[in-house]
Amino acid sequence: MGQHLFKELQRAYGFDEVAIVPGEVTINPDMTSTKLSVGGISFEIPVMASAMDGAVSPRFAGLMHEMGGLGVLNAEGLYSRYDDPYSVLEEIISMPQAEVTQYLQKVYTTPIREDLIARRVQEIKQAGAVCAISFTPQNAKRMSPVAVEAGADIVVVQSTVTTARHMSRSYRGLVFSELIKSLEVPVVVGNCVTYNVATELMETGIDGILVGVGPGAACTTREVVGVGVPQVTATLECAAAREDYYRRTGRYVSVITDGGIRTGGDLCKAIASGADGVMLGTPFAQAAEAPGRGFNWGMANAHPELPRGTRIKVGTKGTLRQILYGPTSVTDGTQNLVSALKVSMGMCGAYTIRDFHKAEMVIAPAIKTEGKFFQMSG
Amino acid sequence: MGQHLFKELQRAYGFDEVAIVPGEVTINPDMTSTKLSVGGISFEIPVMASAMDGAVSPRFAGLMHEMGGLGVLNAEGLYSRYDDPYSVLEEIISMPQAEVTQYLQKVYTTPIREDLIARRVQEIKQAGAVCAISFTPQNAKRMSPVAVEAGADIVVVQSTVTTARHMSRSYRGLVFSELIKSLEVPVVVGNCVTYNVATELMETGIDGILVGVGPGAACTTREVVGVGVPQVTATLECAAAREDYYRRTGRYVSVITDGGIRTGGDLCKAIASGADGVMLGTPFAQAAEAPGRGFNWGMANAHPELPRGTRIKVGTKGTLRQILYGPTSVTDGTQNLVSALKVSMGMCGAYTIRDFHKAEMVIAPAIKTEGKFFQMSG
Amino acid sequence: MGQHLFKELQRAYGFDEVAIVPGEVTINPDMTSTKLSVGGISFEIPVMASAMDGAVSPRFAGLMHEMGGLGVLNAEGLYSRYDDPYSVLEEIISMPQAEVTQYLQKVYTTPIREDLIARRVQEIKQAGAVCAISFTPQNAKRMSPVAVEAGADIVVVQSTVTTARHMSRSYRGLVFSELIKSLEVPVVVGNCVTYNVATELMETGIDGILVGVGPGAACTTREVVGVGVPQVTATLECAAAREDYYRRTGRYVSVITDGGIRTGGDLCKAIASGADGVMLGTPFAQAAEAPGRGFNWGMANAHPELPRGTRIKVGTKGTLRQILYGPTSVTDGTQNLVSALKVSMGMCGAYTIRDFHKAEMVIAPAIKTEGKFFQMSG
Amino acid sequence: MGQHLFKELQRAYGFDEVAIVPGEVTINPDMTSTKLSVGGISFEIPVMASAMDGAVSPRFAGLMHEMGGLGVLNAEGLYSRYDDPYSVLEEIISMPQAEVTQYLQKVYTTPIREDLIARRVQEIKQAGAVCAISFTPQNAKRMSPVAVEAGADIVVVQSTVTTARHMSRSYRGLVFSELIKSLEVPVVVGNCVTYNVATELMETGIDGILVGVGPGAACTTREVVGVGVPQVTATLECAAAREDYYRRTGRYVSVITDGGIRTGGDLCKAIASGADGVMLGTPFAQAAEAPGRGFNWGMANAHPELPRGTRIKVGTKGTLRQILYGPTSVTDGTQNLVSALKVSMGMCGAYTIRDFHKAEMVIAPAIKTEGKFFQMSG
Repeated sequence: MGQHLFKELQRAYGFDEVAIVPGEVTINPDMTSTKLSVGGISFEIPVMASAMDGAVSPRFAGLMHEMGGLGVLNAEGLYSRYDDPYSVLEEIISMPQAEVTQYLQKVYTTPIREDLIARRVQEIKQAGAVCAISFTPQNAKRMSPVAVEAGADIVVVQSTVTTARHMSRSYRGLVFSELIKSLEVPVVVGNCVTYNVATELMETGIDGILVGVGPGAACTTREVVGVGVPQVTATLECAAAREDYYRRTGRYVSVITDGGIRTGGDLCKAIASGADGVMLGTPFAQAAEAPGRGFNWGMANAHPELPRGTRIKVGTKGTLRQILYGPTSVTDGTQNLVSALKVSMGMCGAYTIRDFHKAEMVIAPAIKTEGKFFQMSG
Repeated sequence: MGQHLFKELQRAYGFDEVAIVPGEVTINPDMTSTKLSVGGISFEIPVMASAMDGAVSPRFAGLMHEMGGLGVLNAEGLYSRYDDPYSVLEEIISMPQAEVTQYLQKVYTTPIREDLIARRVQEIKQAGAVCAISFTPQNAKRMSPVAVEAGADIVVVQSTVTTARHMSRSYRGLVFSELIKSLEVPVVVGNCVTYNVATELMETGIDGILVGVGPGAACTTREVVGVGVPQVTATLECAAAREDYYRRTGRYVSVITDGGIRTGGDLCKAIASGADGVMLGTPFAQAAEAPGRGFNWGMANAHPELPRGTRIKVGTKGTLRQILYGPTSVTDGTQNLVSALKVSMGMCGAYTIRDFHKAEMVIAPAIKTEGKFFQMSG
Repeated sequence: MGQHLFKELQRAYGFDEVAIVPGEVTINPDMTSTKLSVGGISFEIPVMASAMDGAVSPRFAGLMHEMGGLGVLNAEGLYSRYDDPYSVLEEIISMPQAEVTQYLQKVYTTPIREDLIARRVQEIKQAGAVCAISFTPQNAKRMSPVAVEAGADIVVVQSTVTTARHMSRSYRGLVFSELIKSLEVPVVVGNCVTYNVATELMETGIDGILVGVGPGAACTTREVVGVGVPQVTATLECAAAREDYYRRTGRYVSVITDGGIRTGGDLCKAIASGADGVMLGTPFAQAAEAPGRGFNWGMANAHPELPRGTRIKVGTKGTLRQILYGPTSVTDGTQNLVSALKVSMGMCGAYTIRDFHKAEMVIAPAIKTEGKFFQMSG
Repeated sequence: MGQHLFKELQRAYGFDEVAIVPGEVTINPDMTSTKLSVGGISFEIPVMASAMDGAVSPRFAGLMHEMGGLGVLNAEGLYSRYDDPYSVLEEIISMPQAEVTQYLQKVYTTPIREDLIARRVQEIKQAGAVCAISFTPQNAKRMSPVAVEAGADIVVVQSTVTTARHMSRSYRGLVFSELIKSLEVPVVVGNCVTYNVATELMETGIDGILVGVGPGAACTTREVVGVGVPQVTATLECAAAREDYYRRTGRYVSVITDGGIRTGGDLCKAIASGADGVMLGTPFAQAAEAPGRGFNWGMANAHPELPRGTRIKVGTKGTLRQILYGPTSVTDGTQNLVSALKVSMGMCGAYTIRDFHKAEMVIAPAIKTEGKFFQMSG
């Protein structure tokens, strides 16, 4: 067997299958810089909160800014459909699990209102924060100018799988180069996972790219439609596209790994794989300040005919500050994410994110065992 | 070690070990066509229900036709052994688990009656459906003309392992080319898993080939006799045989992946691996309309001396329409299989099944983890 | 990393990681022959029962002969240490688990008596059976002549790891070529796992070789001393040695895979990997006629200072006849082992064990999943 | 995919993924020598107890010496912070699990006292033992002369990741060559995992190197910061560095594998991978004589901002003598470690540790299964 295969398959790797190799030089964590830049806008930490209603409200976006990161608001979520989204949130949170998917399917059919989009943008700007707001490709052309008009600093265009060439009967496929010309703010687009799609998207003029389709092993997109690429390989591919595009054009497009990151270790591995930043949902939905108050769900959960995933009880684990900067007494890697990144960079002798991109990695599956615990202080 | 191996072993892959890579172009799911053709007979959806007594009764075959697919009736099952198979079904269903294998061993020794085969075929035809009926190689030559005479549109010849060259003392091995000449309807044959056997079978003139021996990891054929090939590799091999045969002869033989498919994701992966269609048992046994009313079993369970597998309580999960077309609030991939296929094809920019055969795939083991759930709507 | 490794490691495979590929021709199981020959002595089935006190008593050896196989008696076990071993067996069986290792350590220090060895051999011969009896290398030279004198037909010399060149301070290493010359019966030696050791042992003139060190994943030898090679790779290596030795000398030395075989599937895989026969403990300890009455243990369990493994409750699963020949209503592969082998050979078109050695195999890890059960009758 | 990766990843292996292949010659275990030499100081057994407060007290270091090995005292632990460390130990042991990390964070902030370092060294010397004492790189230059002055025989400089070139703002990076010149005793440094770092460290003049960063699969350093290399690969790399350095300079630097070793099997695999010795924490914390009385924790657990790991209840399993030399009735590989090493060496025909370095190994993942237990005495 094997001489007559219909196609060849390459091996792809996820976070649980790799580890970072310490460097030949080490530096103290306080000497590292974790700066991220997207289309000229700078962030102290390369960490974004996902455009999920249970994670990012306008107020949470303000807090993320205070912490040095970026919270992306979902322009097609509850905040843009309801004058009072908080009472709907309340109902989602208190709904029994057996009924919640149907309820999500229902509440997300209330139409999106452009006036509410503008109002939410203004709320974020009034908090003094950089405002990033996320649209699907179907609505981006029509609705994103409203957000920019109201003061949005970054537009995110996001769907499960995004390419530069989408075909549709019901609407003319979004032409990213046109969108980018028409808007005067940086545009971040995703999600994609391959060199070729990342390259084509970069060539449309976008400023950032979101990496991740069906990330993580138990992701329901992979269960339901079979599509997905583990995040380490997806990031390595898109980072290769960024490098080649940068070499060719001199323009640097930021690569943001989005999805599947649960711990500081995963975050470090994403960046060592070539990401300039990361986007996380669960860890922020676990913040005491999160609007979902310990629950989280995605837009795909509300798909009227083919819902994927469901509302998850993620729990409340600490304040946003603790999750990002500690101090913590939690030892499972879910808190103090920024310190973890700085320690990891220090172990690899990386002063900057660009340096950290050069860290060596190995394939080393995490086999679950018990009672390993000895580490000297570092 | 390793320099002196007695034989070389190639790696083979199953559904849980691979994923589909999104395409460079995406299209809206409503632009995809999922048509399957077997020997000139066309189906709207490339989905067949297995010839298992708990899944396909004559009435269920009619329903499958209404849905655009095909239900295959087992010509050697209860429907051809009993005037009133429904009371036997009733007893199987209500039998305690500890006694059911012995009971199955007993009820499947009642002789097959050719008049009943004809009667069941007529029942299916009266429902206005395409009638496909399945025989073992031992009985195909003698019994299949009866079924065709009664109106059967497709004859399936199926055993655990089928080759073009079977040797037996007790009966002259079935010569497929003779069978095909003698019948005037398309013939589908299986199961096989290798390039060479698929090629030899295609050369006998058959119209479709069933792929799958011991599929799935916990399959009892693999436990009991050690034989089996995971379905992705088996499909890739047989699809390669189909392509080479088609290039050589201009005749296109449909490849049907049979066994091991539990979710929409598995179904999509089978077709992306080169299958033209799929055959499923469990998901249809889970339909409200299934004759097994939440139970399923195979003929191998009734083997008088070496039974493999047993009656399984699969449960009733929804109507046949929900299982194939949704809408659903179930998020684990077991419902809305056709929509899943169309979404998956859309993510890969595939207008047709033939286009979807070109989708890229990766090896990406599904490691079970918890709480991954974030997906944007696509 | 990886450019500077101190040594290279090859991948080795066990039963759970491989599967047999069906052949291009299939034959009916009743056309297969499973004959095994060891040093000119023929057996209808290639199956030996391990020299474990819970599995093989003199009476059990007689039953194995009736079934066409071979039960090997442990010449250094309870039967050669006690006039009435059955009352000691009784105590081992009824001992609480927490105390049994210490008890085993104690009862196996009672000296071996040569008169009892002779008596047990005679008991087996009186039952009309081929008598095979097993010694450690330390005792083989001194004690095996007693057994042959008493009528033993085959001498087995067995330790965890056996080589043709063992060094010891306390006794002169056994020289196999001298032993073989001095005895007039076939000699089977083991265990080994590599091409080179198998070749050297064959060159001493032995008639059979036992393959297996630390087989199986949870084997305690591997846990305790880190040594072991999975059985598929070990068998492939030793079978390669047998072929090369046969080509060079014209003498065919039988390869017996010993250890790690739990099901018919494992048995089939061992033989497809190149074994001429298999040796099993657990499945025979599970026979109603086994002296351990549902318990089993090995000599290594009784090691006074470094015991490995312990007494295991294996349960009683059926009569010896059912375990070897069925019929059975058990579907997990632990009964009807010979029928399983014949069905497997049939699926691969193998008339003989030598034909079955040519069967193709694939690497296909058995991932545990639920509810796979569909198989058509074959 | 896969043609455009940003970087290449090599596969790395841990203890659970490999096994040792028996040799072509075997020798009796009593003919093996397990001697280790570090900077001219000789040990009968190549086994060190980790500098963890729950494992090594001054008294325990004395016992390790009596057994032929070496217990390393942590110069920055409780023994150097408290006149009466035993009452603090008592409190750590009795603290509820939920509060213990915070308590550890607190008690390890009490300043290190140089007079106490000297006193503990003297206690060890008074017991007649070789005294080894461990510092972090930050404190080694200042504090280690105190220990040497008081009689310490070996200085260990240890942090999670150590390189010859560490950069820091707050202190001038430790220059190992200067430290080594200033001290008159052997210096052991770690931890590292790569050929290049090991080589650079050896070139500074050190006498021993500790191997292991984030060893073991569930290690929290890997969870928290993503950094780690499985121990078999790490040891193979550092052993290759030792060989090349030895060939070039004639100076032999001992390689000590530190971390992730739970059983005799792991210990044997570490040495077969090229280690000259091993360092273990848990097995010694499980000794009846251990100061942690069944509990263990590392310095990283007490990190004020990013603690990794926590106090673990390891239990008390036997006396130190039993753990090292047996006899034992425990069969899981956690006792009688030295006998296990000698049996393993015997199976590979290795008279010395250097011989054992030549043992062949295979990649053979330990898949957890049930009821494997058959081993003949060896």
